[in-house]
Amino acid sequence: MPIISHKGKAMPESPIRKLVPFAEKAAKEGKHIYHLNIGQPDIKTPIEAMDAVRNHKLDILAYSHSAGFESFRNKLADYYAKHNITVSSDDILVTTGGSEALIFTMGSITDPGDEIIVPEPFYANYYSFSTQSTVKVVPVISKIENGFALPSIAEFEKLITKKTKAILICNPGNPTGYLYSKEEIKQLAELAIKYDLFLISDEVYREFVYDDSEHYSILQEKGLDEYAIIVDSVSKRYSMCGARIGCMISKNKSVMETAMKFAQARLSPPTLAQIASEAALEAPESYYKETVEKYKLRRDTLVAGLREIPGVKVGVPKGAFYCIAELPIEDADHFAQWLLDEFDLDKQTIMVAPASGFYSGPNKGKNQVRIAYVLNRRDLKKAIEILKIALEKYKNQ
Amino acid sequence: MPIISHKGKAMPESPIRKLVPFAEKAAKEGKHIYHLNIGQPDIKTPIEAMDAVRNHKLDILAYSHSAGFESFRNKLADYYAKHNITVSSDDILVTTGGSEALIFTMGSITDPGDEIIVPEPFYANYYSFSTQSTVKVVPVISKIENGFALPSIAEFEKLITKKTKAILICNPGNPTGYLYSKEEIKQLAELAIKYDLFLISDEVYREFVYDDSEHYSILQEKGLDEYAIIVDSVSKRYSMCGARIGCMISKNKSVMETAMKFAQARLSPPTLAQIASEAALEAPESYYKETVEKYKLRRDTLVAGLREIPGVKVGVPKGAFYCIAELPIEDADHFAQWLLDEFDLDKQTIMVAPASGFYSGPNKGKNQVRIAYVLNRRDLKKAIEILKIALEKYKNQ
Repeated sequence: MPIISHKGKAMPESPIRKLVPFAEKAAKEGKHIYHLNIGQPDIKTPIEAMDAVRNHKLDILAYSHSAGFESFRNKLADYYAKHNITVSSDDILVTTGGSEALIFTMGSITDPGDEIIVPEPFYANYYSFSTQSTVKVVPVISKIENGFALPSIAEFEKLITKKTKAILICNPGNPTGYLYSKEEIKQLAELAIKYDLFLISDEVYREFVYDDSEHYSILQEKGLDEYAIIVDSVSKRYSMCGARIGCMISKNKSVMETAMKFAQARLSPPTLAQIASEAALEAPESYYKETVEKYKLRRDTLVAGLREIPGVKVGVPKGAFYCIAELPIEDADHFAQWLLDEFDLDKQTIMVAPASGFYSGPNKGKNQVRIAYVLNRRDLKKAIEILKIALEKYKNQ
Repeated sequence: MPIISHKGKAMPESPIRKLVPFAEKAAKEGKHIYHLNIGQPDIKTPIEAMDAVRNHKLDILAYSHSAGFESFRNKLADYYAKHNITVSSDDILVTTGGSEALIFTMGSITDPGDEIIVPEPFYANYYSFSTQSTVKVVPVISKIENGFALPSIAEFEKLITKKTKAILICNPGNPTGYLYSKEEIKQLAELAIKYDLFLISDEVYREFVYDDSEHYSILQEKGLDEYAIIVDSVSKRYSMCGARIGCMISKNKSVMETAMKFAQARLSPPTLAQIASEAALEAPESYYKETVEKYKLRRDTLVAGLREIPGVKVGVPKGAFYCIAELPIEDADHFAQWLLDEFDLDKQTIMVAPASGFYSGPNKGKNQVRIAYVLNRRDLKKAIEILKIALEKYKNQ
């Protein structure tokens, strides 16, 4: 019998995915589950996007340009200009989700065995895409004690080898919610230039910043044009996770020409979703404002609630819609499973993401969970109450 | 300055893509171009698919299951049953186009340096996806003299090494239009079992078979369940190239579990396009029949027309909507460029795909072009007339 590849065997299985059968069983038993585990927002997609699809006049659902509709890329350039990111449509390659932007980026800049340095904890699928590209993720540890701020540049420098091709950050961060300061971005920019590394920034949560903080993009940084690659997506910005539209942005011509070869091989990004995404750019400013305001209130509710639970440690995330919380337990994987499998409070329970999936090695972040605040505040309060009672019961077992 | 990867540099540029600037220039000069170069059909997408999108009732464009909507996979299983392919929804993984099905397949079964044997000429992007997966395409030569029939099994056996992981066929074939016989599929099945290789069959043109021929799928072959992987797509079947929906099918559980890890990393296939694709399955039988009848007439028109041109050699393709024609020239790349750049007949010209892009090495198929018969018959006749006059003029230069 033919066998699967080492690469295939090495592809990680997320601890969240291992919980799915338990969640399905709990649901079958009639338990209501508050989902704190996923990044699927409950916010409505802009009506402009949904109507554009409803009103389409196509007879033939044809390929688009491999780089995406030119009209869409032009409007994207306008959108970036509003965020003080000066790019032209030629610097933008529309991709099938931020996922494909990462895959094209890794394909364009790495060969098997190359290394990418990533602040840890990191978005679990960075590890999947690296494995797919047979690239090694080299973690540089950020800590809950200072809210997962950028590790010192000296820590990065210790990890740089001949194989190092890039530094990859998520800003604001999934799973940490940490927003890198302008100063931190400047330090990373200097480091990239000093060692001839690409600096890849996943900025899909660009709008989700709170407390009058400002997002500083790597492409706002002067002198970084040949080094900077942005990964972006409409998924979170417009609550359009199912569109599967993202983009890769770089002013480095070699990078973009190379990425285009990957893009041409897969022909084009999805046409209907591009129609929706182009129309979403017409959403009024109020759409973003209301969404961000909603998330800020949710964050405040969540953090305040968590801090009332004895033994729980959590920072105040400045961006995205996640936080990492340390719980008074030893094994969050077991706790998360127990919540679904054995616990309920009046037939209700919660599902959380064990943080182990966001660390590259075993036994890291074992007492941490990631909480996505994608529920309305009433549900969020209820979920926190459930967590509090569950922790007491779990301790007294 | 950081540099791109060897892999990125090795990604092929298709000869068709090199023609694009010349086509753009010709169009700017007011030349009308008959496009014989692309697989974008002019057939209308089923109204059922387009209406399903127009009538969507979604508020939030959310992720789907990573394997695709279960309702869609169930209906796909019914569709395959009609084609005597017995699969369940668990054997089907919905992908972002046939492209992603190929990428997941290669990722699941190959490691860097592994080899896949492919009858040549082959779909140019097989080479791109292999390069992306750092896998080596090993060509086994099929010949225009016998209509690109399957090379002898002895030819395959000569090429099998320890690194060989799979044989990849396209049936019916792009670019050849060749339809493998049941006997040929049985020979390949025996070979795969004998050497423990996967047999991957790209069957995206399944419906496009002519002259009462019958398509025989690798999954109709008994005993091949652990070896067979089908790559499929809605692109050609429903003239929905822009949907970017395909699927990967296998009854080998290890393969499907591994492919699912790749699928989960990229989260989900596009939601709107899945709605369209699921609805397309409701298209009446007449949709397929009329489409196939149309292509058969076009094929007949094309082959008859080409055979009237002195020095042109062409077989009668039994499937898909392409043929490879040998022309009385030395360098089809140059000729194709000349057609766009220097030639016109009353401000009209044609664009063809030089066959060199479908061969793995240099100097192969240099006097061949691929012609896609995706134009209506009147345009097709005009295009053949232009080709005839152009060949005369080119010769007399």
